[in-house]
Amino acid sequence: MEPIILASSSPRRQDILKMLNIPFQVISPNIDEDYSQTKTPFKVAEQFAKAKIQAVLRMMPPKQVIPWVLSADTVIIMNNKIYGKPVDNEQAFDFISKFQGKTHSVITSMALYNGSKRITISKTAMAKVTFAPMSDKEIDWYVSTGEWHGASGGYRIQGVASCFIEKIEGTSSCVTGLPIFELYDMLKEQGYSILE
Amino acid sequence: MEPIILASSSPRRQDILKMLNIPFQVISPNIDEDYSQTKTPFKVAEQFAKAKIQAVLRMMPPKQVIPWVLSADTVIIMNNKIYGKPVDNEQAFDFISKFQGKTHSVITSMALYNGSKRITISKTAMAKVTFAPMSDKEIDWYVSTGEWHGASGGYRIQGVASCFIEKIEGTSSCVTGLPIFELYDMLKEQGYSILE
Repeated sequence: MEPIILASSSPRRQDILKMLNIPFQVISPNIDEDYSQTKTPFKVAEQFAKAKIQAVLRMMPPKQVIPWVLSADTVIIMNNKIYGKPVDNEQAFDFISKFQGKTHSVITSMALYNGSKRITISKTAMAKVTFAPMSDKEIDWYVSTGEWHGASGGYRIQGVASCFIEKIEGTSSCVTGLPIFELYDMLKEQGYSILE
Repeated sequence: MEPIILASSSPRRQDILKMLNIPFQVISPNIDEDYSQTKTPFKVAEQFAKAKIQAVLRMMPPKQVIPWVLSADTVIIMNNKIYGKPVDNEQAFDFISKFQGKTHSVITSMALYNGSKRITISKTAMAKVTFAPMSDKEIDWYVSTGEWHGASGGYRIQGVASCFIEKIEGTSSCVTGLPIFELYDMLKEQGYSILE
Protein backbone atom coordinates (compact mmCIF):
# COMPACT_ATOMS: atom_id res chain seq x y z
CA MET A 1 0.00 0.00 0.00
CA GLU A 2 1.15 3.54 -0.77
CA PRO A 3 1.85 5.82 2.17
CA ILE A 4 -0.78 8.42 3.02
CA ILE A 5 -0.14 11.83 4.53
CA LEU A 6 -2.55 12.23 7.44
CA ALA A 7 -3.39 15.91 7.85
CA SER A 8 -4.41 15.50 11.51
CA SER A 9 -2.57 15.26 14.79
CA SER A 10 -5.41 13.32 16.47
CA PRO A 11 -4.03 10.14 18.09
CA ARG A 12 -7.46 8.48 17.63
CA ARG A 13 -7.33 8.96 13.86
CA GLN A 14 -3.79 7.60 13.83
CA ASP A 15 -4.92 4.54 15.83
CA ILE A 16 -7.59 3.81 13.21
CA LEU A 17 -5.11 3.97 10.31
CA LYS A 18 -2.76 1.69 12.25
CA MET A 19 -5.58 -0.78 12.89
CA LEU A 20 -6.28 -0.82 9.14
CA ASN A 21 -2.55 -1.34 8.39
CA ILE A 22 -2.48 1.78 6.22
CA PRO A 23 1.04 3.27 6.18
CA PHE A 24 0.96 6.97 7.00
CA GLN A 25 2.91 10.02 8.01
CA VAL A 26 1.42 12.87 10.02
CA ILE A 27 1.64 16.48 8.86
CA SER A 28 -0.48 18.77 11.03
CA PRO A 29 -2.30 21.45 9.07
CA ASN A 30 -2.08 24.90 10.53
CA ILE A 31 -5.62 26.21 10.31
CA ASP A 32 -7.77 28.20 12.63
CA GLU A 33 -10.62 25.94 13.81
CA ASP A 34 -13.10 28.66 14.59
CA TYR A 35 -16.64 27.47 13.94
CA SER A 36 -18.29 30.47 15.57
CA GLN A 37 -18.86 32.47 12.38
CA THR A 38 -20.42 29.67 10.38
CA LYS A 39 -23.95 29.96 9.06
CA THR A 40 -24.14 26.41 7.68
CA PRO A 41 -23.42 24.02 10.56
CA PHE A 42 -24.02 20.88 8.46
CA LYS A 43 -21.44 21.98 5.85
CA VAL A 44 -18.72 23.23 8.16
CA ALA A 45 -16.95 19.88 8.73
CA GLU A 46 -16.55 19.42 4.98
CA GLN A 47 -15.22 22.98 4.57
CA PHE A 48 -12.67 22.45 7.35
CA ALA A 49 -11.60 19.03 6.06
CA LYS A 50 -10.93 20.54 2.62
CA ALA A 51 -9.13 23.52 4.18
CA LYS A 52 -6.84 21.10 6.05
CA ILE A 53 -5.89 19.41 2.75
CA GLN A 54 -5.12 22.80 1.18
CA ALA A 55 -3.04 23.83 4.20
CA VAL A 56 -0.91 20.69 3.95
CA LEU A 57 -0.50 20.95 0.16
CA ARG A 58 0.73 24.55 0.59
CA MET A 59 3.35 23.34 3.05
CA MET A 60 4.89 20.84 0.61
CA PRO A 61 7.94 21.70 -1.52
CA PRO A 62 6.81 22.60 -5.12
CA LYS A 63 8.54 19.69 -6.87
CA GLN A 64 7.74 16.96 -4.36
CA VAL A 65 5.48 14.15 -5.60
CA ILE A 66 2.49 13.87 -3.27
CA PRO A 67 0.53 10.65 -3.59
CA TRP A 68 -2.32 10.87 -1.05
CA VAL A 69 -3.38 13.32 1.65
CA LEU A 70 -6.23 12.51 4.04
CA SER A 71 -7.90 14.89 6.47
CA ALA A 72 -10.99 14.83 8.66
CA ASP A 73 -13.01 17.24 10.72
CA THR A 74 -15.62 16.39 13.37
CA VAL A 75 -18.31 18.67 14.72
CA ILE A 76 -21.17 18.13 17.11
CA ILE A 77 -24.49 19.78 16.38
CA MET A 78 -27.52 20.12 18.63
CA ASN A 79 -30.39 22.52 17.92
CA ASN A 80 -28.43 24.02 15.03
CA LYS A 81 -25.55 25.02 17.34
CA ILE A 82 -22.02 23.71 16.87
CA TYR A 83 -20.11 22.34 19.85
CA GLY A 84 -16.34 22.36 19.43
CA LYS A 85 -13.68 21.43 22.01
CA PRO A 86 -14.37 22.83 25.47
CA VAL A 87 -11.71 25.21 26.73
CA ASP A 88 -12.00 24.48 30.45
CA ASN A 89 -13.77 22.35 33.12
CA GLU A 90 -16.65 24.78 33.30
CA GLN A 91 -17.36 24.63 29.59
CA ALA A 92 -17.01 20.83 29.56
CA PHE A 93 -19.60 20.69 32.37
CA ASP A 94 -21.86 23.01 30.40
CA PHE A 95 -21.63 20.90 27.21
CA ILE A 96 -22.37 17.59 29.00
CA SER A 97 -25.24 19.23 30.93
CA LYS A 98 -26.78 20.17 27.61
CA PHE A 99 -26.22 16.71 26.04
CA GLN A 100 -27.52 14.62 28.97
CA GLY A 101 -30.98 13.16 28.41
CA LYS A 102 -30.94 14.21 24.74
CA THR A 103 -29.79 13.16 21.27
CA HIS A 104 -27.27 15.14 19.24
CA SER A 105 -25.64 14.71 15.84
CA VAL A 106 -21.98 14.07 15.16
CA ILE A 107 -20.72 14.90 11.70
CA THR A 108 -17.33 13.82 10.45
CA SER A 109 -16.22 14.86 7.00
CA MET A 110 -13.10 13.53 5.37
CA ALA A 111 -11.23 14.95 2.41
CA LEU A 112 -8.79 13.00 0.27
CA TYR A 113 -6.25 14.43 -2.17
CA ASN A 114 -5.44 12.01 -4.95
CA GLY A 115 -2.04 13.14 -6.24
CA SER A 116 -2.10 11.11 -9.47
CA LYS A 117 -5.29 12.90 -10.57
CA ARG A 118 -4.58 16.13 -8.64
CA ILE A 119 -8.14 16.17 -7.26
CA THR A 120 -9.59 16.48 -3.77
CA ILE A 121 -12.76 14.59 -2.99
CA SER A 122 -14.72 14.46 0.25
CA LYS A 123 -17.14 12.20 2.08
CA THR A 124 -19.31 12.87 5.12
CA ALA A 125 -20.67 10.52 7.79
CA MET A 126 -23.26 11.30 10.42
CA ALA A 127 -24.14 9.59 13.67
CA LYS A 128 -26.74 10.30 16.31
CA VAL A 129 -25.66 9.94 19.91
CA THR A 130 -28.15 9.67 22.79
CA PHE A 131 -26.99 10.47 26.31
CA ALA A 132 -28.90 9.09 29.31
CA PRO A 133 -30.11 11.55 31.93
CA MET A 134 -27.16 12.37 34.23
CA SER A 135 -27.02 13.83 37.71
CA ASP A 136 -24.78 16.83 38.42
CA LYS A 137 -22.63 14.46 40.49
CA GLU A 138 -22.15 12.22 37.44
CA ILE A 139 -21.30 15.18 35.19
CA ASP A 140 -18.87 16.50 37.81
CA TRP A 141 -17.21 13.11 38.04
CA TYR A 142 -16.95 12.83 34.26
CA VAL A 143 -15.41 16.28 33.95
CA SER A 144 -12.96 15.44 36.77
CA THR A 145 -11.61 12.46 34.75
CA GLY A 146 -10.19 15.01 32.28
CA GLU A 147 -11.27 12.82 29.37
CA TRP A 148 -12.93 15.84 27.72
CA HIS A 149 -9.59 17.52 26.92
CA GLY A 150 -9.22 17.93 23.14
CA ALA A 151 -12.51 16.15 22.35
CA SER A 152 -15.23 17.72 20.20
CA GLY A 153 -18.25 18.24 22.46
CA GLY A 154 -16.14 17.35 25.50
CA TYR A 155 -16.55 13.57 25.54
CA ARG A 156 -14.94 10.45 24.11
CA ILE A 157 -17.23 7.63 23.07
CA GLN A 158 -14.37 5.15 23.33
CA GLY A 159 -13.77 6.22 26.96
CA VAL A 160 -15.73 6.33 30.22
CA ALA A 161 -18.29 8.64 28.59
CA SER A 162 -19.80 5.38 27.28
CA CYS A 163 -21.23 4.79 30.79
CA PHE A 164 -23.72 7.52 29.95
CA ILE A 165 -24.31 6.86 26.24
CA GLU A 166 -27.50 4.87 25.81
CA LYS A 167 -27.38 4.49 22.09
CA ILE A 168 -25.77 5.53 18.87
CA GLU A 169 -27.18 5.39 15.38
CA GLY A 170 -24.37 5.42 12.87
CA THR A 171 -20.88 4.14 13.61
CA SER A 172 -18.66 4.77 16.59
CA SER A 173 -15.68 5.49 14.30
CA CYS A 174 -17.66 8.48 12.95
CA VAL A 175 -17.99 9.73 16.54
CA THR A 176 -14.31 8.96 17.21
CA GLY A 177 -13.41 11.13 14.22
CA LEU A 178 -12.53 8.86 11.29
CA PRO A 179 -15.48 6.89 9.90
CA ILE A 180 -13.98 3.58 8.80
CA PHE A 181 -16.74 2.41 6.48
CA GLU A 182 -16.79 5.69 4.53
CA LEU A 183 -12.97 5.84 4.53
CA TYR A 184 -12.72 2.36 3.02
CA ASP A 185 -15.34 3.31 0.43
CA MET A 186 -13.69 6.62 -0.49
CA LEU A 187 -10.26 4.98 -0.86
CA LYS A 188 -11.75 2.14 -2.95
CA GLU A 189 -13.44 4.65 -5.28
CA GLN A 190 -10.06 6.29 -5.89
CA GLY A 191 -8.37 2.97 -6.62
CA TYR A 192 -6.57 2.68 -3.29
CA SER A 193 -7.17 -0.82 -2.00
CA ILE A 194 -6.51 -1.89 1.56
CA LEU A 195 -7.19 -5.55 0.69
CA GLU A 196 -3.55 -6.58 0.69
CA MET B 1 -13.80 -0.01 44.44
CA GLU B 2 -14.29 -3.65 45.41
CA PRO B 3 -12.75 -6.28 43.15
CA ILE B 4 -15.08 -8.13 40.78
CA ILE B 5 -14.70 -11.70 39.60
CA LEU B 6 -15.09 -11.66 35.82
CA ALA B 7 -16.55 -14.97 34.69
CA SER B 8 -15.22 -14.63 31.14
CA SER B 9 -11.90 -15.19 29.46
CA SER B 10 -12.63 -12.69 26.67
CA PRO B 11 -9.77 -10.18 26.36
CA ARG B 12 -12.25 -7.58 24.98
CA ARG B 13 -14.37 -7.76 28.14
CA GLN B 14 -11.23 -7.43 30.24
CA ASP B 15 -10.17 -4.37 28.23
CA ILE B 16 -13.50 -2.70 28.97
CA LEU B 17 -13.21 -3.30 32.74
CA LYS B 18 -9.64 -1.93 32.62
CA MET B 19 -10.82 1.17 30.75
CA LEU B 20 -13.45 1.72 33.48
CA ASN B 21 -10.78 1.26 36.19
CA ILE B 22 -12.78 -1.57 37.77
CA PRO B 23 -10.46 -3.98 39.60
CA PHE B 24 -11.11 -7.58 38.57
CA GLN B 25 -9.87 -11.11 38.57
CA VAL B 26 -10.72 -13.61 35.82
CA ILE B 27 -12.20 -17.03 36.59
CA SER B 28 -13.30 -18.79 33.42
CA PRO B 29 -16.55 -20.69 33.80
CA ASN B 30 -16.54 -24.16 32.38
CA ILE B 31 -19.81 -24.43 30.50
CA ASP B 32 -20.75 -25.92 27.19
CA GLU B 33 -21.68 -23.05 24.85
CA ASP B 34 -23.96 -25.03 22.59
CA TYR B 35 -26.77 -22.85 21.29
CA SER B 36 -27.99 -25.39 18.74
CA GLN B 37 -30.77 -26.90 20.89
CA THR B 38 -32.34 -23.61 21.97
CA LYS B 39 -35.91 -22.79 21.07
CA THR B 40 -35.84 -19.21 22.43
CA PRO B 41 -33.00 -17.38 20.65
CA PHE B 42 -33.76 -14.04 22.32
CA LYS B 43 -33.50 -15.60 25.81
CA VAL B 44 -30.44 -17.74 25.31
CA ALA B 45 -27.81 -15.08 26.11
CA GLU B 46 -29.45 -14.43 29.49
CA GLN B 47 -29.62 -18.16 30.24
CA PHE B 48 -25.94 -18.62 29.40
CA ALA B 49 -24.84 -15.52 31.36
CA LYS B 50 -26.64 -16.86 34.45
CA ALA B 51 -25.20 -20.35 33.89
CA LYS B 52 -21.69 -18.83 33.83
CA ILE B 53 -22.29 -17.19 37.24
CA GLN B 54 -23.51 -20.52 38.67
CA ALA B 55 -20.51 -22.36 37.21
CA VAL B 56 -18.09 -19.92 38.87
CA LEU B 57 -19.94 -19.96 42.23
CA ARG B 58 -19.75 -23.76 42.24
CA MET B 59 -15.98 -23.55 41.75
CA MET B 60 -15.43 -21.37 44.86
CA PRO B 61 -14.43 -22.87 48.24
CA PRO B 62 -17.57 -23.06 50.52
CA LYS B 63 -16.32 -20.63 53.16
CA GLN B 64 -14.82 -18.01 50.86
CA VAL B 65 -16.50 -14.59 50.89
CA ILE B 66 -17.50 -13.71 47.33
CA PRO B 67 -18.31 -10.04 46.79
CA TRP B 68 -19.21 -9.67 43.10
CA VAL B 69 -19.23 -11.97 40.05
CA LEU B 70 -19.93 -10.62 36.57
CA SER B 71 -20.57 -12.63 33.42
CA ALA B 72 -21.76 -11.91 29.91
CA ASP B 73 -22.88 -13.83 26.88
CA THR B 74 -23.22 -12.52 23.32
CA VAL B 75 -25.21 -14.07 20.51
CA ILE B 76 -25.99 -12.95 17.00
CA ILE B 77 -29.46 -13.55 15.62
CA MET B 78 -30.68 -13.23 12.06
CA ASN B 79 -33.99 -14.67 10.85
CA ASN B 80 -34.48 -16.39 14.20
CA LYS B 81 -31.23 -18.35 13.80
CA ILE B 82 -28.34 -18.03 16.25
CA TYR B 83 -24.82 -17.51 14.94
CA GLY B 84 -22.10 -18.55 17.37
CA LYS B 85 -18.32 -18.60 16.81
CA PRO B 86 -17.35 -20.04 13.43
CA VAL B 87 -15.21 -23.20 13.64
CA ASP B 88 -13.18 -22.71 10.47
CA ASN B 89 -12.49 -20.42 7.47
CA GLU B 90 -15.33 -21.97 5.51
CA GLN B 91 -17.91 -21.30 8.21
CA ALA B 92 -16.58 -17.75 8.77
CA PHE B 93 -17.03 -17.14 5.01
CA ASP B 94 -20.53 -18.58 5.19
CA PHE B 95 -21.54 -16.33 8.14
CA ILE B 96 -20.21 -13.13 6.55
CA SER B 97 -21.84 -14.05 3.22
CA LYS B 98 -25.15 -14.23 5.03
CA PHE B 99 -24.62 -10.95 6.94
CA GLN B 100 -23.43 -8.85 3.97
CA GLY B 101 -26.04 -6.42 2.65
CA LYS B 102 -28.34 -7.14 5.62
CA THR B 103 -29.07 -6.16 9.22
CA HIS B 104 -28.76 -8.60 12.13
CA SER B 105 -29.26 -8.33 15.89
CA VAL B 106 -26.57 -8.68 18.52
CA ILE B 107 -27.73 -9.53 22.02
CA THR B 108 -25.45 -9.33 25.02
CA SER B 109 -26.79 -10.33 28.40
CA MET B 110 -24.87 -9.78 31.59
CA ALA B 111 -25.45 -11.42 34.94
CA LEU B 112 -24.16 -10.03 38.24
CA TYR B 113 -23.92 -11.91 41.54
CA ASN B 114 -24.14 -9.56 44.51
CA GLY B 115 -22.50 -11.49 47.36
CA SER B 116 -23.76 -9.25 50.16
CA LYS B 117 -27.37 -9.98 49.16
CA ARG B 118 -26.65 -13.43 47.68
CA ILE B 119 -28.69 -12.61 44.58
CA THR B 120 -28.00 -12.80 40.85
CA ILE B 121 -29.53 -10.18 38.60
CA SER B 122 -29.25 -9.78 34.85
CA LYS B 123 -29.51 -7.13 32.19
CA THR B 124 -29.69 -7.41 28.41
CA ALA B 125 -28.64 -5.01 25.67
CA MET B 126 -29.44 -5.27 21.99
CA ALA B 127 -27.84 -3.67 18.95
CA LYS B 128 -28.62 -3.86 15.27
CA VAL B 129 -25.69 -4.11 12.90
CA THR B 130 -25.96 -3.41 9.17
CA PHE B 131 -23.32 -4.80 6.83
CA ALA B 132 -22.77 -3.20 3.42
CA PRO B 133 -22.96 -5.45 0.37
CA MET B 134 -19.62 -7.24 0.02
CA SER B 135 -17.99 -8.98 -2.93
CA ASP B 136 -16.68 -12.55 -2.53
CA LYS B 137 -13.18 -11.04 -2.85
CA GLU B 138 -13.86 -8.78 0.14
CA ILE B 139 -15.27 -11.64 2.22
CA ASP B 140 -12.28 -13.82 1.28
CA TRP B 141 -9.90 -11.04 2.29
CA TYR B 142 -11.70 -10.53 5.60
CA VAL B 143 -11.62 -14.23 6.41
CA SER B 144 -7.91 -14.35 5.50
CA THR B 145 -7.13 -11.71 8.17
CA GLY B 146 -8.09 -14.33 10.79
CA GLU B 147 -9.94 -11.69 12.80
CA TRP B 148 -13.02 -13.97 12.98
CA HIS B 149 -11.29 -16.44 15.35
CA GLY B 150 -13.21 -16.61 18.63
CA ALA B 151 -15.73 -13.91 17.64
CA SER B 152 -19.49 -14.48 17.76
CA GLY B 153 -20.75 -14.33 14.19
CA GLY B 154 -17.18 -14.31 12.90
CA TYR B 155 -16.42 -10.60 12.97
CA ARG B 156 -15.08 -7.95 15.32
CA ILE B 157 -16.68 -4.51 15.16
CA GLN B 158 -13.58 -2.95 16.74
CA GLY B 159 -11.40 -4.46 13.98
CA VAL B 160 -11.16 -4.33 10.18
CA ALA B 161 -14.73 -5.66 9.91
CA SER B 162 -15.73 -2.02 10.44
CA CYS B 163 -14.73 -1.36 6.80
CA PHE B 164 -17.92 -3.19 5.88
CA ILE B 165 -20.25 -2.09 8.69
CA GLU B 166 -22.43 0.73 7.44
CA LYS B 167 -24.30 1.38 10.63
CA ILE B 168 -25.11 0.21 14.11
CA GLU B 169 -28.12 1.05 16.21
CA GLY B 170 -27.32 0.47 19.85
CA THR B 171 -23.81 0.65 21.27
CA SER B 172 -20.59 -0.82 19.99
CA SER B 173 -19.73 -2.15 23.47
CA CYS B 174 -22.86 -4.35 23.23
CA VAL B 175 -21.48 -5.75 19.97
CA THR B 176 -18.00 -6.11 21.50
CA GLY B 177 -19.55 -8.19 24.31
CA LEU B 178 -19.85 -5.99 27.40
CA PRO B 179 -22.38 -3.16 27.09
CA ILE B 180 -20.90 -0.33 29.13
CA PHE B 181 -24.03 1.77 29.62
CA GLU B 182 -26.06 -1.19 30.92
CA LEU B 183 -23.09 -2.39 33.01
CA TYR B 184 -22.77 0.99 34.71
CA ASP B 185 -26.51 1.04 35.32
CA MET B 186 -26.66 -2.50 36.73
CA LEU B 187 -23.71 -1.86 39.06
CA LYS B 188 -25.24 1.44 40.22
CA GLU B 189 -28.56 -0.27 40.99
CA GLN B 190 -26.71 -2.73 43.21
CA GLY B 191 -24.86 0.03 45.06
CA TYR B 192 -21.51 -0.48 43.29
CA SER B 193 -20.30 2.92 42.20
CA ILE B 194 -17.51 3.47 39.70
CA LEU B 195 -17.51 7.23 40.39
CA GLU B 196 -14.36 7.21 42.47
